[in-house]
Amino acid sequence: MGVTKLAYQASQEEHSIEITNVQALEGLVKARMEKGAFGYIAGGAEDEWTLRENGVAFDHKHIAPRVLKNIEKPDLSTTFMGIDLKIPMIAAPIAAQGLAHEQGEIDTAKGVAAVGSIMSLSTYSNKTISETCDGGTGGPQFFQLYMSKDEKFNRFLLDQAKKVGMKAIILTADSTLGGNREADSINHFTFPIPMANLAEYGEGEGQGIAAIYANAKQTLSLEDIKTISDYTDLPVFVKGIQSPLDIDDIIEAGAKGVWVSNHGGRQLDGGPASFDVLESIAKKVNKRVPIVFDSGIRRGSHIFKALASGADVVAIGRPMVYGLHLGGAQGVQSVFEHLSKELTIDMQLAGTKTVDDIKKTELI
Amino acid sequence: MGVTKLAYQASQEEHSIEITNVQALEGLVKARMEKGAFGYIAGGAEDEWTLRENGVAFDHKHIAPRVLKNIEKPDLSTTFMGIDLKIPMIAAPIAAQGLAHEQGEIDTAKGVAAVGSIMSLSTYSNKTISETCDGGTGGPQFFQLYMSKDEKFNRFLLDQAKKVGMKAIILTADSTLGGNREADSINHFTFPIPMANLAEYGEGEGQGIAAIYANAKQTLSLEDIKTISDYTDLPVFVKGIQSPLDIDDIIEAGAKGVWVSNHGGRQLDGGPASFDVLESIAKKVNKRVPIVFDSGIRRGSHIFKALASGADVVAIGRPMVYGLHLGGAQGVQSVFEHLSKELTIDMQLAGTKTVDDIKKTELI
Amino acid sequence: MGVTKLAYQASQEEHSIEITNVQALEGLVKARMEKGAFGYIAGGAEDEWTLRENGVAFDHKHIAPRVLKNIEKPDLSTTFMGIDLKIPMIAAPIAAQGLAHEQGEIDTAKGVAAVGSIMSLSTYSNKTISETCDGGTGGPQFFQLYMSKDEKFNRFLLDQAKKVGMKAIILTADSTLGGNREADSINHFTFPIPMANLAEYGEGEGQGIAAIYANAKQTLSLEDIKTISDYTDLPVFVKGIQSPLDIDDIIEAGAKGVWVSNHGGRQLDGGPASFDVLESIAKKVNKRVPIVFDSGIRRGSHIFKALASGADVVAIGRPMVYGLHLGGAQGVQSVFEHLSKELTIDMQLAGTKTVDDIKKTELI
Amino acid sequence: MGVTKLAYQASQEEHSIEITNVQALEGLVKARMEKGAFGYIAGGAEDEWTLRENGVAFDHKHIAPRVLKNIEKPDLSTTFMGIDLKIPMIAAPIAAQGLAHEQGEIDTAKGVAAVGSIMSLSTYSNKTISETCDGGTGGPQFFQLYMSKDEKFNRFLLDQAKKVGMKAIILTADSTLGGNREADSINHFTFPIPMANLAEYGEGEGQGIAAIYANAKQTLSLEDIKTISDYTDLPVFVKGIQSPLDIDDIIEAGAKGVWVSNHGGRQLDGGPASFDVLESIAKKVNKRVPIVFDSGIRRGSHIFKALASGADVVAIGRPMVYGLHLGGAQGVQSVFEHLSKELTIDMQLAGTKTVDDIKKTELI
Repeated sequence: MGVTKLAYQASQEEHSIEITNVQALEGLVKARMEKGAFGYIAGGAEDEWTLRENGVAFDHKHIAPRVLKNIEKPDLSTTFMGIDLKIPMIAAPIAAQGLAHEQGEIDTAKGVAAVGSIMSLSTYSNKTISETCDGGTGGPQFFQLYMSKDEKFNRFLLDQAKKVGMKAIILTADSTLGGNREADSINHFTFPIPMANLAEYGEGEGQGIAAIYANAKQTLSLEDIKTISDYTDLPVFVKGIQSPLDIDDIIEAGAKGVWVSNHGGRQLDGGPASFDVLESIAKKVNKRVPIVFDSGIRRGSHIFKALASGADVVAIGRPMVYGLHLGGAQGVQSVFEHLSKELTIDMQLAGTKTVDDIKKTELI
Repeated sequence: MGVTKLAYQASQEEHSIEITNVQALEGLVKARMEKGAFGYIAGGAEDEWTLRENGVAFDHKHIAPRVLKNIEKPDLSTTFMGIDLKIPMIAAPIAAQGLAHEQGEIDTAKGVAAVGSIMSLSTYSNKTISETCDGGTGGPQFFQLYMSKDEKFNRFLLDQAKKVGMKAIILTADSTLGGNREADSINHFTFPIPMANLAEYGEGEGQGIAAIYANAKQTLSLEDIKTISDYTDLPVFVKGIQSPLDIDDIIEAGAKGVWVSNHGGRQLDGGPASFDVLESIAKKVNKRVPIVFDSGIRRGSHIFKALASGADVVAIGRPMVYGLHLGGAQGVQSVFEHLSKELTIDMQLAGTKTVDDIKKTELI
Repeated sequence: MGVTKLAYQASQEEHSIEITNVQALEGLVKARMEKGAFGYIAGGAEDEWTLRENGVAFDHKHIAPRVLKNIEKPDLSTTFMGIDLKIPMIAAPIAAQGLAHEQGEIDTAKGVAAVGSIMSLSTYSNKTISETCDGGTGGPQFFQLYMSKDEKFNRFLLDQAKKVGMKAIILTADSTLGGNREADSINHFTFPIPMANLAEYGEGEGQGIAAIYANAKQTLSLEDIKTISDYTDLPVFVKGIQSPLDIDDIIEAGAKGVWVSNHGGRQLDGGPASFDVLESIAKKVNKRVPIVFDSGIRRGSHIFKALASGADVVAIGRPMVYGLHLGGAQGVQSVFEHLSKELTIDMQLAGTKTVDDIKKTELI
Repeated sequence: MGVTKLAYQASQEEHSIEITNVQALEGLVKARMEKGAFGYIAGGAEDEWTLRENGVAFDHKHIAPRVLKNIEKPDLSTTFMGIDLKIPMIAAPIAAQGLAHEQGEIDTAKGVAAVGSIMSLSTYSNKTISETCDGGTGGPQFFQLYMSKDEKFNRFLLDQAKKVGMKAIILTADSTLGGNREADSINHFTFPIPMANLAEYGEGEGQGIAAIYANAKQTLSLEDIKTISDYTDLPVFVKGIQSPLDIDDIIEAGAKGVWVSNHGGRQLDGGPASFDVLESIAKKVNKRVPIVFDSGIRRGSHIFKALASGADVVAIGRPMVYGLHLGGAQGVQSVFEHLSKELTIDMQLAGTKTVDDIKKTELI
């Protein structure tokens, strides 16, 4: 407490990275990153059963190789929410990317723009909304809102999101309080660098996750969708959906998108693997609104399976942050490019020329 | 035999304990406790398949996270057998708690009362019925009866239970003889301190489990329910239920409660996981009498899943005893508080405000 | 070849043994026994998948503990083929027991008789039929016939079996050639002591398994049942049944008993676990003839599960031979007594008073 | 690049090899072979999930031992595509066998001919078509075509295949680009010796797999079947089938055979195990054309299970190449003989006298 704490040393790397597979980056990051930061990024809730199952679940369905389909150079581009994407994957809204890199969300936004995709910026970013958008290359961005008990702060955030031209608001619905993450507890982890939007608004540095969540609005309700939507005139995605039982309610309440996610296994341990619930949710959505899928994607084949199970795009979380740590904006770009390379091979071997072809594929 | 055996040194700790998760306490206890005592407490029957499966079984069903349910500060209180509880968990009736702590059941009762729950006192306690009730803080208690062949001893116990104001009798039905616990056999374990009720009645110290069980009444029958009930005028729970086939019989014979348990995997190895049979039993009970569930609970999510599968409350066994060993009454309290903290998070993330909401939840 | 080989040193132990569980004996035996002999006894075919699965399969069904059934001192006795047995388990016909003990099958027969059960003597024993029966204590015995291409040798064996009063002939039907056991191949295992019946008939010592099997009759057919039956006037069991498709044929051909076994996983690797096929076979048999079950029994609960799935008695193989090695006749007795102790506990806890009660139990 | 690279040292062994089981050869090869070459031969795509599952899948079905079927000396011969085979297994068309042995495909062809089976020669062989056929012993051969973008090269290959009397063309349909094999990427593997047919045609040595595949025709289509068939007047097998959905199309397009394979788990990781899809494909084929099965065969019991699930013959890949490395032509012969020995035992124990009997067997 009375000890002078050395300033947190984040990565300053700026270069493309060589990737065998994106999961293998985790070990490299673990060897370089401060233990508490790594625990916060890589860890999950409690026994990490749901975290592990998020990965295992992709083995529950299989892609049948198909032959003689006259395929060449599969096309990974897609249109999502009226935005043309070069790849069917976008950035997941990861908090506190300053832990991974000095340039934090600015570099992530650059990397994501370079691959022709969408940046998702968290409320709990280490760069402000305006920094990230100015620092980016003008690619499309979504803003992820963690609603505060302080309505003024919510409006402060939404005002800026609107001002910088965010294309959608992602309402974080699965995190009205923080998951029980044991690594953070064991490491007595507190954020070593300020949450930029909170700081700009006048709050601060050196908080634990508990302190951050202390201001979170717990009483999120269906009405919040309309409030945000009306206030911003932007489409609202509800993020953290894991049950078909929530679908009708949120669509009727005005949601323009469903974001299937269990927060990368960081919230409710003992919940199902995210991929295991995707198909039943997609059936319930029945194409009324688009679906983003995340939690567990580490391979091109995972992306293929998610798209074939009802997702319109997938979001990439930890691997993107590992790329950020190891190579800055170019590292982020390398991660998306590697996943694209894997997906391209899978598409070719599965006889699918386009993202729409993937969506029509029946897994076995 | 001719060797002077040193007196058993039980823990005298009296303080709250820091808990990452309650299962992790087992390792701490193992490192401190006399080997034979630890083997007796932690071990299960034969290959410990049922013991392990008790834990694994909770992964057979999952809690779907739910969103935008307008939940805040979930309420863990419930009413059970007309008793108001602050939490939906009670003490399991663990024998020989003097192995864990010098104050044994007295401290457990204090800790349990402090968290607003029910103490269950075993026949084979190291503190007498009156010591435990006097030493406690006046919280509600149940008495667990292991019936003896000696009817006089049974009446001796029930007289006291009634005298001190016990709220119910738990008839141990799954232990007419001891399970085949190999750790006890390998450690040549005998109880180093007297079973207090036996001692008070005039029996003694230094017995092996076999000797203790030698006096157990094996010919337990449905009639015993009525006999106990008539003699005490107290509701009788039958503990050790694992089959729906027993339900009609025991309810018709006068049981006022069903206690689903496989004795923590200590009796019949090769039996099912306790959680795996809960739902079918609850369906058979069909709310005619309340249900207590135990065997394998180590997480708030386990409690949630048990309540959602038909239990009215759960009972906590080994983790409670570990808390007792590590911190006395306050350690017991810490264990229940930690589980409550986990359950609170689960309730919030699952969109359940009350214990009744949990009971209405459909697991996936 | 030109090297003088030291005579095989078999065990000469003669005392009861302390048993925690019978599977644990395997490690003790491995540490004492000559490597090739141990490999022959303990090993299975190829990848030993079926061998391992024989054990795992018992976890596919569970014994539901039952309560308040007024049970005391369960009765393990049963009647099998008109023979009164004290326990529902008999000796499996293990070959070459001289590898385990100098007294070989003589001691096994003594031990089995002492526990009130049936000895099964293999054609490939290291003691002759007459030695085993003279050396035994007069308990009932079955003779297991491996049919030879030499009809004269078959008659030589059956003549003796009849002469000494064998109660039944077990026709080995699953071993018209030897399984592909890699341990034997790696160890270049040959039998270090003569097959006594072959030696008496005039064949010999120092053969590999291949040589032994070279004389085996491969063209076993349904007609052999009647031939043996007519020649001996004894009931014929067909051993090695794993498919319901064989049942009608063998019963119509005159079999008086079905012996469900996959030879302890020593013959066809990639076949099902023996316990997994028992129930469907028992349904097909439909009580027309009695059923013996073996392959994988290591616990009282396994015996319980086999009886509840259609077996009339079970046969004990490797554990019995381990007992023989470690303690001679008394060691054999210890093994059966230990399994009886476990089964007694299981019966008590499952609310079953008799073997017939077990047979009526529905596993879950 | 400027460094003089030592010439690749391939094996020159020429002798039969002792085999416990063919999978165990992998470790022996690994200890002797250059790392990059071993990685190329043994490795699979990405996480190697499909590679491992190819083996595990055989445990999903079981061979029921059958008794008293009057079987002796099972007959492994079969007729396939009008060719008499002594065994129901043929050579899989493995590329670059010069990595394993100096005599490469020549020795393989000799070994395969010696066991009375069919050699399959890859486009990417290290010996030319004419070398392999001249060097062989005149046994039947199939030619595996990897179609090039260069139609002239395709015709060059087919002209020779026809000229040397190949009996069929295997159209590789699952490899329009290379799988994502991480071992090759980690080892920076390039082929150290020329692809003989490319070299003869005028292309070369020292290429990575990527370079090889750069010339591959990606736009393979159903029309290619007819083109090849018309050009060569030979039956065309389509290799790499994993989905029943492809069957009608390829048969209607003129395919005279279906080759069920996932390229040994080297192409699309996340696809099903090859054995798991065999039965549904065979049902769809419904005997209109013959079926070859490969990917994962390591045991006689695997061959049995594949034949019982609809295959007419199986193809042996890696184990054959391991035999080639360890013993040249005789090593190849040893591998097929060992598998034949295992299959013979399985047939005897399963009560099947002929390959047709196996095909009629129902697995359980």
